[in-house]
Amino acid sequence: MICIFVTGGTFDKTYDEIRGTLTFGETHLPEMLRLGRSRVEVSVRTLMMIDSLNMTDEHRQVIVAACSACGDSRIVVTHGTDTMVETAAALANGINGKTIVLTGALVPYAFGSSDGLFNLGSALSFAEVLPPGVYIAMNGQHFKWDKVRKNRETGVFESAGE
Amino acid sequence: MICIFVTGGTFDKTYDEIRGTLTFGETHLPEMLRLGRSRVEVSVRTLMMIDSLNMTDEHRQVIVAACSACGDSRIVVTHGTDTMVETAAALANGINGKTIVLTGALVPYAFGSSDGLFNLGSALSFAEVLPPGVYIAMNGQHFKWDKVRKNRETGVFESAGE
Amino acid sequence: MICIFVTGGTFDKTYDEIRGTLTFGETHLPEMLRLGRSRVEVSVRTLMMIDSLNMTDEHRQVIVAACSACGDSRIVVTHGTDTMVETAAALANGINGKTIVLTGALVPYAFGSSDGLFNLGSALSFAEVLPPGVYIAMNGQHFKWDKVRKNRETGVFESAGE
Amino acid sequence: MICIFVTGGTFDKTYDEIRGTLTFGETHLPEMLRLGRSRVEVSVRTLMMIDSLNMTDEHRQVIVAACSACGDSRIVVTHGTDTMVETAAALANGINGKTIVLTGALVPYAFGSSDGLFNLGSALSFAEVLPPGVYIAMNGQHFKWDKVRKNRETGVFESAGE
Repeated sequence: MICIFVTGGTFDKTYDEIRGTLTFGETHLPEMLRLGRSRVEVSVRTLMMIDSLNMTDEHRQVIVAACSACGDSRIVVTHGTDTMVETAAALANGINGKTIVLTGALVPYAFGSSDGLFNLGSALSFAEVLPPGVYIAMNGQHFKWDKVRKNRETGVFESAGE
Repeated sequence: MICIFVTGGTFDKTYDEIRGTLTFGETHLPEMLRLGRSRVEVSVRTLMMIDSLNMTDEHRQVIVAACSACGDSRIVVTHGTDTMVETAAALANGINGKTIVLTGALVPYAFGSSDGLFNLGSALSFAEVLPPGVYIAMNGQHFKWDKVRKNRETGVFESAGE
Repeated sequence: MICIFVTGGTFDKTYDEIRGTLTFGETHLPEMLRLGRSRVEVSVRTLMMIDSLNMTDEHRQVIVAACSACGDSRIVVTHGTDTMVETAAALANGINGKTIVLTGALVPYAFGSSDGLFNLGSALSFAEVLPPGVYIAMNGQHFKWDKVRKNRETGVFESAGE
Repeated sequence: MICIFVTGGTFDKTYDEIRGTLTFGETHLPEMLRLGRSRVEVSVRTLMMIDSLNMTDEHRQVIVAACSACGDSRIVVTHGTDTMVETAAALANGINGKTIVLTGALVPYAFGSSDGLFNLGSALSFAEVLPPGVYIAMNGQHFKWDKVRKNRETGVFESAGE
């Protein structure tokens, strides 16, 4: 069983057609799992629905507490890409003995050209087989939490070092 | 580096708007990798473009030979779902020491509601981290080649074998 | 008010993921009208759900009878493209004083690359403003029922007949 | 022949995946006409690429001048919905003897759930058959320029004026 925690980010943004802006509604996770014909046993819980640029230490403690309380040892967290690495560090400092994979998207799932479905398939798969630790799964790759950074110019996650 | 071999299947079917039928054209793999913003180093090669119900032992030997000749030890094979298990067995009997992951789709990628992108993200991720062996990656899960069957009534891959 | 009669055709084909074939289910018309944010007052009624190559004279008489019985003078009929012209002729011979527009699609609506939504917007608009008569609306154009043919090689409807 | 002038609006917004914002790039018009398998003879020209809330009188004079100079008597203008009615009034005051249809979208075409393709099919069709005048085509309907307003709460265009 895998515990999926939703925190918002580009992944889950939708278009508000009255205001003409990007906004948050309900998570698309259940619809995406259905589309992927996923048979992975999961529980999906929305912790918050925010842009990761607005994520504070308090928000991060909510995520750490949820991952800590979760009875399963395998966890996926959906998250905005801008501060995904910071949250990964908070999780690594706060939790031991669990496989936690953070993922997100560069383009909202509700957009035709989103990488969200690809990333979700990737993150679930990594969560099923990687040993305990905190990882980021983006661009079809996985990185240990302290060996990665987001390249803000290309939008790509890349190896970064100690 | 991961070697991707394309063999056809529902995954790659397209709609022929003159004849009104499902058919094969070029593989959608490169487009799908672009959509997934994949940064996994891959080589993509189309071995055949056929419905897996039409796959013969000769076709399977072409796939085994290609996987055998491939210089990389990590391989993804896209394949029709109906006889994916048979091809997995042929690969397991013919090849040692490589991680080979077969995947496909229940709905063509070109259709709006396809599981293809999810499955591709999943298969690439399993191929990156699983130990040598032959696996099937479908429905967000992975199975050893001799521990799986396709349930023809539900379309779902499930555990089987002793 | 516009009466919409559904008869099937490529427009409404869906993918049967268990059998791997194109088939018919419920019509996509209500979903398409919602997507188009249509505020046109319509009633939608499914007369049949068939490939237009299988359409017989009896089927055509059902369509003529429905259009004749319909209390509105403006009608849209969705129809397979292969014999759309024959049904248009049957309607022209059987009905006077109503504006009837036939439309369809070259690619199923459920496919990502369908012309269905464009054609529906076009057919409804022509039905609202054209004088009584029987027309075919395809490729953004409209044709009188006796001045059109489908080019089977290109899939395009073009002027024909003097 | 129909002259299509592009001015921007929600219709043509795209998602900037580096900045995470909605923005303008190239117009999607040619791709949309291809998707609709349109065979209407058109010329497409981008006059500006702006949010209609930012449209000034000077911008409107550019549109009036382009429609006036255009050798064809049938014209479609894509436009943001917020001030579409104001631009329609400017066109009605500046031009006689041409059929001009303004249209737009509530959701960007690049989003999966856009009304753009439906609206484009509708606007082209109205432009082909309506008598000279300035019209707005939205929600599958058409309105004379001085008989319409956008309802800001529902996003719907509705009859207005005496």
